Amino acid sequence: MNLNVDGARLLRDLKELSTIGNVGKGGSRLALSEEDMAARRWLRDRMEQAGLDASIDGIGNVFGYTPGAERYLLIGSHTDTVPMGGWLDGALGVMTGLEIARAFMAAGAPGPVGIGVVSFSDEEGTIVSLLGSRVFGGSLTWDEVAQAKGADGRTLAEARAAAGLADAEIARIDPQRHAGYIEIHIEQGPVLESEGRAVGIVTEIVGIRRARATFHGRADHAGTTPMAARSDAAQAMFAFATAFRDFVQTHGGPNTVFNLGGAKIAPGAFNVVPERAELLVEYRSPSLEALDRIEAAMPELAQVAAAQARATGSVVLAGGEPSAAMAPSMIGHLTRAAQRLQLSSRTMPSGAGHDAMSMASQIPAGMLFVPSIGGRSHTPEEDTAPDDIVAGLRVMAEATGTILEEFAAGK
Amino acid sequence: MNLNVDGARLLRDLKELSTIGNVGKGGSRLALSEEDMAARRWLRDRMEQAGLDASIDGIGNVFGYTPGAERYLLIGSHTDTVPMGGWLDGALGVMTGLEIARAFMAAGAPGPVGIGVVSFSDEEGTIVSLLGSRVFGGSLTWDEVAQAKGADGRTLAEARAAAGLADAEIARIDPQRHAGYIEIHIEQGPVLESEGRAVGIVTEIVGIRRARATFHGRADHAGTTPMAARSDAAQAMFAFATAFRDFVQTHGGPNTVFNLGGAKIAPGAFNVVPERAELLVEYRSPSLEALDRIEAAMPELAQVAAAQARATGSVVLAGGEPSAAMAPSMIGHLTRAAQRLQLSSRTMPSGAGHDAMSMASQIPAGMLFVPSIGGRSHTPEEDTAPDDIVAGLRVMAEATGTILEEFAAGK
Repeated sequence: MNLNVDGARLLRDLKELSTIGNVGKGGSRLALSEEDMAARRWLRDRMEQAGLDASIDGIGNVFGYTPGAERYLLIGSHTDTVPMGGWLDGALGVMTGLEIARAFMAAGAPGPVGIGVVSFSDEEGTIVSLLGSRVFGGSLTWDEVAQAKGADGRTLAEARAAAGLADAEIARIDPQRHAGYIEIHIEQGPVLESEGRAVGIVTEIVGIRRARATFHGRADHAGTTPMAARSDAAQAMFAFATAFRDFVQTHGGPNTVFNLGGAKIAPGAFNVVPERAELLVEYRSPSLEALDRIEAAMPELAQVAAAQARATGSVVLAGGEPSAAMAPSMIGHLTRAAQRLQLSSRTMPSGAGHDAMSMASQIPAGMLFVPSIGGRSHTPEEDTAPDDIVAGLRVMAEATGTILEEFAAGK
Repeated sequence: MNLNVDGARLLRDLKELSTIGNVGKGGSRLALSEEDMAARRWLRDRMEQAGLDASIDGIGNVFGYTPGAERYLLIGSHTDTVPMGGWLDGALGVMTGLEIARAFMAAGAPGPVGIGVVSFSDEEGTIVSLLGSRVFGGSLTWDEVAQAKGADGRTLAEARAAAGLADAEIARIDPQRHAGYIEIHIEQGPVLESEGRAVGIVTEIVGIRRARATFHGRADHAGTTPMAARSDAAQAMFAFATAFRDFVQTHGGPNTVFNLGGAKIAPGAFNVVPERAELLVEYRSPSLEALDRIEAAMPELAQVAAAQARATGSVVLAGGEPSAAMAPSMIGHLTRAAQRLQLSSRTMPSGAGHDAMSMASQIPAGMLFVPSIGGRSHTPEEDTAPDDIVAGLRVMAEATGTILEEFAAGK
């Protein structure tokens, strides 16, 4: 199936969407805010203009289906943003889906298989991270999240009512009807740009684990207490930081990354031996075994580090996300599409979470990355070269054609 | 000269003083507060009852001189405390001076040499650290400190006026009249207790240097940015902490201690590579060379540590105090006094600052430590065994006898 997509039209759509919630160079469409809902209604209108059956469900997810099919390939992402975010994060995936659906409609290709375009709600976690895709995919229920509160103190139920969604039904995935999902997204990292590649084909979205490493010492006078008589929580924390880094570098395996993103020392004075120290620990890996290995090692790393400083140490887990493998069938479609278009590509894990995570446990899911200039995202400076955006659109359209042929063949 | 001091009377005086400003188990006599001034008036009255010429000067220093002499040995410390402090820190030195002066008066030993008892103002730095002794000793002038503000926002000039001191003269040291200074103080550390010694003879009060080590990186996504592409301010800080510790342990020399007492990491999130990290650095040594060596090494330690994490690092000095050597003559008097009394003693540096620092640059100064139970101070739990208090009093009285004989002989 040949889908004749229009790159210039996609770029115009993206620019128009970026004016909703635009603030200076940046844009803010926090989930379920007035700006977010204005963008979702704009999207629904665009879908209808393209001839799709369009709707906004009770949690803010926007759907647009080509009419008449029994089985759909979902193409999408999200149109909400972080505060002062960029113009492509999420929006690229949704508007690419709409452009492909328009090409599908123009090709006059009605039949048993079609395209569903989707913008999921609150991917960025203003209230609940990956909210729309997780509720649609079934890994969260409305009852589990209705009382969740955002940074402004509103519950999700209140935000939903304020957005005028309280009476609308909340859609749920039907694997008979929704046969697959693909998403294009900016990489949000420097790999494709530094290697000069047009697209990256995501093999898996890494799993994330978080923990707090806490150390307890004794607050003594930092002048009169001999070094050997101190129980120093900060020295314990510094030793743990080094040991943790060494462990991940040695035993973390490929594509595992970590971040020690925050620390507190109390009481925090020049002249008092630290009594308490806490370190924020996060690590990500496509390998469940690597995540488990690091998690299992941390308590002993903390204890050994603390013992060096005559302190005590412990580790409390603080949540995370399981990894999600992309479907080999979708990886194949995207890889062959890039090859046919003679675009340079590579496979790579995604270090960030995406709506595709929520789909991957239910239906075959695939993801395509395009380069981020300077690796930057979640900032008004976020950008991708127009040629790279159009190349990504063409790979997605090419892959859509072969995926729909596969669906039609009943595979 | 034999001074017949009364240990039980000293203990009773200390207990009575501790009731002024007493709060639960602790005591608070913040400098120039109502409680502090009540204690100083109580002390002045006690001095007068003992027959001393007593006064409170314009900055809160309390003096009591045995009458009629031309040259004096000053004995003292301070009666102000930290918030919720203990009953001995400072008070022990002042009340020991008073007890020795009483014994001097009882011995009927008037003549050209006498004893001056002193309680210096604001040793603890409620407004200005070592205020009374530094102004008396001449290392600070009133004009330099009048506008200094305490934690409550009051200037020292306002606090002085509120304490009723605005019209009183501020006394200044006269090295012809004030021929020497000795001070007994609790150790505030665990050394004497752990070695089972009755007294410590201070050889020098350590110098203190403070600095802030600051590191700058780039705030990137902690999932999508490869480890090798990160500029991580916290990793730079951790590397510096380790390198600084190793440097001080290797090149710091004997009796040098350090403390990395506080740290901040920004933005401080699990999933953002740290953009900025700051570490509080303090180190103390009796050796000026050691302090200079560490200070000189820090910038390169910071740069090398930062380079490992592709960040930048710099060090900004944040003040300190010079070291102060005790006079060999005073060390000798105190050492021989302990030997004659057959008490176990050792020489040691003081890791904390004391009023004796302010005297040492002007007149021969000596300090004696008694054991701190558990090494604790600046807490209501601060304590010293009564036998150790009395042993300290006896050493101070014995040394006073030989010092006054030396003064009388015109040495």
